[in-house]
Amino acid sequence: MPLLVVGTLALDTIQTSTETRDSLLGGSAVYFSCAANYFSPVHLVGVVGDDWPPEHTQFLESRGIDISGLDKVPGTKTFRWRTQYTPGLTQRETLDVQLNVYGSYSPVLPESLRRCPFLFLANGSPTVQLRVLDQMTGPRLVIAEAIEMWIRQERDELLGLLQRVDGFVLSASEAIQLSGEANLVRAGMMIRELGPSFVVIKKGEHGAMFFSKHETYVLPAYPTADVIDPTGAGDSFAGGMMGYLAEQGSFEPTTLKEAMAYGILAASFTVEDFSVDRLRGVQRSDIELRMERYRRMLTF
Amino acid sequence: MPLLVVGTLALDTIQTSTETRDSLLGGSAVYFSCAANYFSPVHLVGVVGDDWPPEHTQFLESRGIDISGLDKVPGTKTFRWRTQYTPGLTQRETLDVQLNVYGSYSPVLPESLRRCPFLFLANGSPTVQLRVLDQMTGPRLVIAEAIEMWIRQERDELLGLLQRVDGFVLSASEAIQLSGEANLVRAGMMIRELGPSFVVIKKGEHGAMFFSKHETYVLPAYPTADVIDPTGAGDSFAGGMMGYLAEQGSFEPTTLKEAMAYGILAASFTVEDFSVDRLRGVQRSDIELRMERYRRMLTF
Repeated sequence: MPLLVVGTLALDTIQTSTETRDSLLGGSAVYFSCAANYFSPVHLVGVVGDDWPPEHTQFLESRGIDISGLDKVPGTKTFRWRTQYTPGLTQRETLDVQLNVYGSYSPVLPESLRRCPFLFLANGSPTVQLRVLDQMTGPRLVIAEAIEMWIRQERDELLGLLQRVDGFVLSASEAIQLSGEANLVRAGMMIRELGPSFVVIKKGEHGAMFFSKHETYVLPAYPTADVIDPTGAGDSFAGGMMGYLAEQGSFEPTTLKEAMAYGILAASFTVEDFSVDRLRGVQRSDIELRMERYRRMLTF
Repeated sequence: MPLLVVGTLALDTIQTSTETRDSLLGGSAVYFSCAANYFSPVHLVGVVGDDWPPEHTQFLESRGIDISGLDKVPGTKTFRWRTQYTPGLTQRETLDVQLNVYGSYSPVLPESLRRCPFLFLANGSPTVQLRVLDQMTGPRLVIAEAIEMWIRQERDELLGLLQRVDGFVLSASEAIQLSGEANLVRAGMMIRELGPSFVVIKKGEHGAMFFSKHETYVLPAYPTADVIDPTGAGDSFAGGMMGYLAEQGSFEPTTLKEAMAYGILAASFTVEDFSVDRLRGVQRSDIELRMERYRRMLTF
């Protein structure tokens, strides 16, 4: 089933301890789309400026991602983000954010996308996320992600959003920040009680936790020795997860758990190179092969 | 099969954000024994001073732990440790260590224990751990644990020890410290190449990773909302793991993975109260029940 994502397209500058890469293809909606697209048709809605390289557009199209909802605003610049990772790549510091055209962006969904059954509200303020949600007609499943800044700056709007989404995805530090609870199991349970049917806490290299009314579980990350750039791991996780749900057209508990696993595997590929470069060479069959290994790893 | 553990018995003072508890029953060999004892007969070798409360001895005996190798040295005091946890209980700071009688302890194994087939070298300097190993005759499986201080202070001795053990258990931060590698997958592989047949990296609330020549895997921690005091989780993990291996009398890959899971579950109980108090009320059947849930959690 078709899946709509609204979020950022970005030009990222990434510094690791060994390398700096400039103006890479990035952004929450890009990582999400590239991962989700293995499973389901993806419609991407977002905005870029004049500096957006045409090859990025071509790449997204070559993946079969529908970009009819992508605005290119003349006389503006694309959202830019610059970050620096610690040597172990487990932590990062944002060095610079330039919202540029994204700063005043208020997404208007093309008529054709308003009945999309699956919606992912990627990086954006809760106000913008709610504005997108208001344009939709009868979506079957809506998942939103949290961003640290908006938990601080738009807490009330975020609490309003949580009443209206089915699933909510956030990082461990965001979960602690939002709940005020340092035990992640308790934090996840508390956040679920704020409205969503299920909550996912992303733990980076340690995997992800799932909370619904009836279930609490954790799945580990797929262990990889080849971590090059963790940027986009969280959005790739969400993309793999929601892409699989859209493919299955279901969100039964068993499907949700499989979707969590696909999300984890999508992220495990993304971190193995800069930008979405690793995904350029990955086929669905590679994901399935890793899934076999992952299932075997968790069987005893 | 019988299992011998040599390590510390301690009186711990634990400060959490809500409570301070004084002179609790603690120490690596105590936590290990209480967890291992669900699975196999355990012989504990260690040393205490005059201040060791007789009820602690009685408790260990009541669990069926053989303490014929426990030295009580008149005119001395027991090893004491004082620590303070951060509010989320995920980090701690050692406030005070008094080695006391343990500082000059050189374990002499009773003749009857020298042919014990399974040996765990708990908290102790590599020099002392090697001295214990030298007293053994033909053990089937030897596992040692690392302690941060000794990685710094006795690195050469530790490297010698690694050549002589089958398994080596250490925390994530110790693995990074020992290997100089911040990616835990790489770190584990590097440490295994230093000698042991397998290496286990304990990740606390995030579970544990396993490395052998043919396998790398990670199992998540059992998610519990009721973390009261994480002290001893690592030694309980080692106890559950090695106790199960001794019970099975085998260390096949499949048995090792089951043992990892039992270790994780033993730790999940230990953290639910101060000292070994939670284990006082836990039966083997409780562990098996949690194992069923844990297997179900990892099945999709």
